[in-house]
Amino acid sequence: MKLKVKDMDIATGGTLIAILHQSDAQKLDLHHEDRIKIRFRNKSASAVMDIAETKKAVKPGCIGLFEEVLDKLNVKHDNTFEIYLGEEPRSVGYIRKKLDGGRLSKEEIEQIIKDILNNNLSAIEITYFISAVYTKGFDIEETINLTKEMVEHGETLKLDKRVVVDKHSSGGVPGNRTTMIIVPIIAAAGLTIPKTSSRAISSPAGTADTMEVLAPVSLPVSKMKRVVNKTNACIVWGGAMNLAAADDKMIKIRHPLSLDPRGMLLASIMAKKQAVNSTHVLVDLPVGKSTKFKTITEAKSLKKDFIRVGRRLGMKVDVILTDGKQPIGNGIGPALEARDVLYVLRNDPRAPQDLKEKSLMMAAKMMQMTGHKNCKERARTILESGKAYEKMKEIIKEQGGNPKINPDSIKVGEFTYMVKAEKAGKIISVDNKIIAKVARVAGAPRDRGAGLYLHKHIGDCVEKGTPLMTIYSESEQKLKYAKEVLKMFDGIEIN
Amino acid sequence: MKLKVKDMDIATGGTLIAILHQSDAQKLDLHHEDRIKIRFRNKSASAVMDIAETKKAVKPGCIGLFEEVLDKLNVKHDNTFEIYLGEEPRSVGYIRKKLDGGRLSKEEIEQIIKDILNNNLSAIEITYFISAVYTKGFDIEETINLTKEMVEHGETLKLDKRVVVDKHSSGGVPGNRTTMIIVPIIAAAGLTIPKTSSRAISSPAGTADTMEVLAPVSLPVSKMKRVVNKTNACIVWGGAMNLAAADDKMIKIRHPLSLDPRGMLLASIMAKKQAVNSTHVLVDLPVGKSTKFKTITEAKSLKKDFIRVGRRLGMKVDVILTDGKQPIGNGIGPALEARDVLYVLRNDPRAPQDLKEKSLMMAAKMMQMTGHKNCKERARTILESGKAYEKMKEIIKEQGGNPKINPDSIKVGEFTYMVKAEKAGKIISVDNKIIAKVARVAGAPRDRGAGLYLHKHIGDCVEKGTPLMTIYSESEQKLKYAKEVLKMFDGIEIN
Repeated sequence: MKLKVKDMDIATGGTLIAILHQSDAQKLDLHHEDRIKIRFRNKSASAVMDIAETKKAVKPGCIGLFEEVLDKLNVKHDNTFEIYLGEEPRSVGYIRKKLDGGRLSKEEIEQIIKDILNNNLSAIEITYFISAVYTKGFDIEETINLTKEMVEHGETLKLDKRVVVDKHSSGGVPGNRTTMIIVPIIAAAGLTIPKTSSRAISSPAGTADTMEVLAPVSLPVSKMKRVVNKTNACIVWGGAMNLAAADDKMIKIRHPLSLDPRGMLLASIMAKKQAVNSTHVLVDLPVGKSTKFKTITEAKSLKKDFIRVGRRLGMKVDVILTDGKQPIGNGIGPALEARDVLYVLRNDPRAPQDLKEKSLMMAAKMMQMTGHKNCKERARTILESGKAYEKMKEIIKEQGGNPKINPDSIKVGEFTYMVKAEKAGKIISVDNKIIAKVARVAGAPRDRGAGLYLHKHIGDCVEKGTPLMTIYSESEQKLKYAKEVLKMFDGIEIN
Repeated sequence: MKLKVKDMDIATGGTLIAILHQSDAQKLDLHHEDRIKIRFRNKSASAVMDIAETKKAVKPGCIGLFEEVLDKLNVKHDNTFEIYLGEEPRSVGYIRKKLDGGRLSKEEIEQIIKDILNNNLSAIEITYFISAVYTKGFDIEETINLTKEMVEHGETLKLDKRVVVDKHSSGGVPGNRTTMIIVPIIAAAGLTIPKTSSRAISSPAGTADTMEVLAPVSLPVSKMKRVVNKTNACIVWGGAMNLAAADDKMIKIRHPLSLDPRGMLLASIMAKKQAVNSTHVLVDLPVGKSTKFKTITEAKSLKKDFIRVGRRLGMKVDVILTDGKQPIGNGIGPALEARDVLYVLRNDPRAPQDLKEKSLMMAAKMMQMTGHKNCKERARTILESGKAYEKMKEIIKEQGGNPKINPDSIKVGEFTYMVKAEKAGKIISVDNKIIAKVARVAGAPRDRGAGLYLHKHIGDCVEKGTPLMTIYSESEQKLKYAKEVLKMFDGIEIN
């Protein structure tokens, strides 16, 4: 059937989509989501069909094409061409198999990831894949194959090192910036730690956002390698490694229901470790009602899987369950967190002790995993002697930042609002989700200086009028919105 | 945030969609699929957010709206208004609950169906719902609640009858037009049978398509009631009862993976029976590799559920498992099937015996279910005496068709092609799926005269050159396509 192109002026950022009027679709016996093959001159593309029910979108005899298809075929508005029946990608059958409780082979997982990366699967099909993994699970073998497949399609960092140390903290706890303290301690101890971190998705800051206050974090792999060879370490944004392509598409579809199928969660984390050739990995799973793990039992079961998957991938993995019931540190938001980190590294009296002690505990564990002795003492000495701070300055310098940066010169939001206790008593809860929401609405992570500063934590006693937190924002409007959120929800509970 | 409307010139036919540029989405901390609330003058709407990554689709400061939203708010291109953060519909939480294996209450199912009907759920969310029901199942209680909810949102036919007979045949067997023979037999026996049927989705003809060759089938409920009151029966398209709205949306999303979650399948069928107040229902489940039920075990397990759900809804349900390994009757496609039906009713020697005998068997079972005696003999007498044919003429007349229609005057496709045996032997298989595909490509069901006529069935012996089937088409081009399909696949196997 010969059809005339209508440029729909829309990009999906993913799946290739073509729209036919329903009368044409009926003539060709095509249904919603069927595949059609389009050839134009020497180019061809396979697209997912959508059906227009009114003539307004696409008239009979026309084919509406989204930007991706126009680009791929190099066709223009009003060009005409033939369309052919396309075949369903093989991975659709594999997704059905998983929905029916089957086990996916290495080749089947490979095909699904390739089809996702090549935009051959529609959002509905990817949703079925995520549901299938969520409800039927991935066994260790499948998880390993998914991990390897993700590594396969990304860049990798090859270092000439026998031991490469790494860490991961799962999300949900604002302010949990241990990485920026652990990395310099570990590197100063003589170990190699090429750390890739993420940016915030739904939190006020990811480690990459906070580190970016001090130095560039979007380094290409070659530059990253130079930094690590010089300093034993780096703290960069993992997105530059392109590991995320398939992962990102799946995360977008997991978002509406906030689903975290275990096999995907494990693969997504382990692939990042595998990509930098890590040999020793410490995983921190904060447990608490607003983190990913509501109960110790849940976290323990994931712990086992982490260790098993790690072993199969040739990594020594240790997992700690930590207290995730309230934020760690005082500052929330990129600039405020970066300031806290520098306070800890400079042994400033304003350093939040919870952040310092958690980082020391984790650094010691990581050193111990590689066979070091007296790790607790060594880690503390490295930090308190200023060696970790010196190392951090080296890292900042090599990544292209200013090593002389002073924590008190870091710019924080000029519009502030102090929240005070409305009654005397003991603080019994600080809600991670509300704190994160307030910081985000105030502008974090996009506005680096936005966020909030916690003056008090759980267990602290307060008088009526004692400052509980200060909100920082770069705009008066956003500060107003943040205050409104606090009016609706009680972030800090006193009893 | 104040935004300017861009008319996207697209209708989704479903979910309300609004597109923001990613910079605006970030400012408001909005993600793909989040909800926003839009108010314009005195109207408001809640829409699902999509994010444009390029400026081509939607520029910063603009909001791209699909037709449904423009209509609902009565806004035009270049209007400006404020948007607000919307809330996730409550049903999203219920869908998550089902994915986690929970049981849905009556109220939760009600909310999901309402949100689907009101276009409050996105395709991704409905996909999660279908996956959840597919992988975690619906128990009898949930199935009954889904059934009742569907009936609730459709029209119903209220007859003043103690006994209302009905039947259902599940799909996958071309030519299986028993309804058009059973209904006049049952009605001639004095029982009431207000039959609603479907149109083809992926088959060459649904009963509604075939009946439409003889009489109009899109009757409003009031007209349907008049026909039944006059003749004891009708054979109409169920779509007119609007039961299908929620069902149709779900079917669209089930299509890409051809999923048939049992709870949805049952509810969809039983709702149609409940809507006409049926008291006695016979369900025909053809078993065979290209039908919905590959094995007897599968069909038997569904049989139990049918009977249980029926009992709870106050219906007496009986289920028969029939042979679904090849087409029933000779004609495939609306006109060719209608001709077969009239041959049977007129006791024409050209009547396909398999279609006649299956219809008699089912009609007898249905009469027996209501307590009648000697049903086999009575059914046969009604048919062979011509009483069933007289009844059919009454029904045709009351629905607005021509009761004097002669089977040999029914127009079939003028372009034909006869397929002959390439060798001598016995026919060992007639593939339902290939036969259906050939008939559809030839033009059925849209071209009523298109389809094919089977001269032979499984078990028949043939010489080289014996006619196996004749393809009928209303266009030379389509006939050519149909021949090409047959070149690729062997529809009839001889050994």
